[in-house]
Amino acid sequence: MAPTAGDARFDVCGIGNALVDVLARADDAFLAAHALAKGTMSLIDEERADALYALMGPAVERSGGSAANTMVGIASLGGRSAYIGRVRDDQLGAVFRHDIRAAGVAFDSAAATSGPATGRSLIFVTPDAHRTMQTYLGAANGLTPDDVDADVVAASGIVYLEGYLWDPPAAKEAFLKAARVAHEAGRRVALTLSDPFCVERYREEFLDLARNHVDVLFANEQELLSLYRVESFDDALQRVRADAARTGAMAALTRSEKGSVVVAGDEVHVVDAEPAEVVDTTGAGDLYAAGFLHGLARGLPPAACGRIGAIAAAEAISHFGARPERPLAALVAAAGVA
Amino acid sequence: MAPTAGDARFDVCGIGNALVDVLARADDAFLAAHALAKGTMSLIDEERADALYALMGPAVERSGGSAANTMVGIASLGGRSAYIGRVRDDQLGAVFRHDIRAAGVAFDSAAATSGPATGRSLIFVTPDAHRTMQTYLGAANGLTPDDVDADVVAASGIVYLEGYLWDPPAAKEAFLKAARVAHEAGRRVALTLSDPFCVERYREEFLDLARNHVDVLFANEQELLSLYRVESFDDALQRVRADAARTGAMAALTRSEKGSVVVAGDEVHVVDAEPAEVVDTTGAGDLYAAGFLHGLARGLPPAACGRIGAIAAAEAISHFGARPERPLAALVAAAGVA
Repeated sequence: MAPTAGDARFDVCGIGNALVDVLARADDAFLAAHALAKGTMSLIDEERADALYALMGPAVERSGGSAANTMVGIASLGGRSAYIGRVRDDQLGAVFRHDIRAAGVAFDSAAATSGPATGRSLIFVTPDAHRTMQTYLGAANGLTPDDVDADVVAASGIVYLEGYLWDPPAAKEAFLKAARVAHEAGRRVALTLSDPFCVERYREEFLDLARNHVDVLFANEQELLSLYRVESFDDALQRVRADAARTGAMAALTRSEKGSVVVAGDEVHVVDAEPAEVVDTTGAGDLYAAGFLHGLARGLPPAACGRIGAIAAAEAISHFGARPERPLAALVAAAGVA
Repeated sequence: MAPTAGDARFDVCGIGNALVDVLARADDAFLAAHALAKGTMSLIDEERADALYALMGPAVERSGGSAANTMVGIASLGGRSAYIGRVRDDQLGAVFRHDIRAAGVAFDSAAATSGPATGRSLIFVTPDAHRTMQTYLGAANGLTPDDVDADVVAASGIVYLEGYLWDPPAAKEAFLKAARVAHEAGRRVALTLSDPFCVERYREEFLDLARNHVDVLFANEQELLSLYRVESFDDALQRVRADAARTGAMAALTRSEKGSVVVAGDEVHVVDAEPAEVVDTTGAGDLYAAGFLHGLARGLPPAACGRIGAIAAAEAISHFGARPERPLAALVAAAGVA
């Protein structure tokens, strides 16, 4: 099933919501006062985004977007990555385009010339380093199958899709088109479940995707419990194993400071978290996926993929913001993994 | 000369170029390849800004502007500050407005509805923590006397002006209007020389301003040497003393890690720098001025003003970006200054 990546122009092509992050510190009382559920992502409309922004403290803008962060992580690891996502032809859209390209990711999606502004994610970082996201999708919400460049997807060893995309009908079609194009080209399809609320809303659809369309599944513990409607991680793990043993798929299950568990067919590997001083957990999952996918693209064994993911995630949580601040390739080399 | 601030609605009103900072790391080879003079600020046009931005690495956007940073610093110290500056009604203008207000600064300048976009300063931070700025003024370049709200200036104990403003003819008029309104209301006028190249271009005019229109002068060592065309700090200091003894004015002269020297009439005070781990010097001078002005507004003696400036500057250089990340009032209280 796993084709060699030798003929691929890109190791991984990510498709997701193209967003600029607006990061500010906030305390738990602020989250409570505005009914924000800590550690989750909620979709909000423009009016609510404007109202919340007005209440937000002084902020910093950085390009974000879950799959986009992952592609930047792969480039920082020395891999070849591409990205597909929708921005508008406005200042924040220019910021998004500049940053992802400056990080070494191929990004050629045309900017929308009408409709909503470039999307943004208001990220509230609490003193315990957890992030709570309120996202106005804006232009990203208008992604359609036409935005999915079939040549880029077919030329990528792996296509990586955000669960966050699985909401607007046209974006679902875009998602399915990308998976179909990838499989027809003999490529692999990876999916991250993104958020427990996403899973809650689309459980049956995500189960179908995971079982029938996806070669590599990324999920954190909360998302996994929600997907299988179980109470314990171990129960969920047995379900994943049963599914993976049947299809030969892989799953990378992240557990914050408990590390990760990698399932590959009927193998199970337990990977420790890398020690890190936690400043802001924004991007931890995104960069774990970057490390894992980079290892996969290089043909490394599952546990090594998880280890690279752990190293990349540790870098992400050691500073404010989701994108790496130090070259990940050097950190991985220093750790002697690859 | 110095009126009591008791009747003032604001301690300080800053007037300057309203800019969004675009910060990225760069090495010395990059500066050399693009003929950028380390540690200085150059004004560039939109075309050059676009070309440099395309060459810049992944960046972070934060609201900036020298006098705006100073006003944010004063708010963080617990003072009452206002700001006057020109942005456009675009996304970066909204970011600037949000951040300065969220920091507690009164900012009611209307956004321009036509003309150039909100200005931005491309800031290259080298591994030695020095910052090199390439600024496209955009909308800020269009500041006119009409933008100077005389009521706000007259209601502020001190009006604080950037030397950076002293370039477009209409901004010079705005500058002089603000100084006139302040003095007519019995307020004080403070000026920072901003940059050695500014001083080089307008030496005679700055000397005239410093000697005849300004009650509090801020300058760093390079700017001071350029202003008086002398080779040594001590020579420059004697000139400042002669001027200050005649007019009764104050001068706060900053010397990076060597601390600062405060001249007040015929007094001279030497103030040590606060120890800090230097990450990025962006904003050091801006926050020194914030601390100094805050002390002045509270009627503290000159050396104490310099000490508060040093504490605020140490906070600014300990992180990436020009605006304070920790409440300055708490740092000053912990140091037992005020």
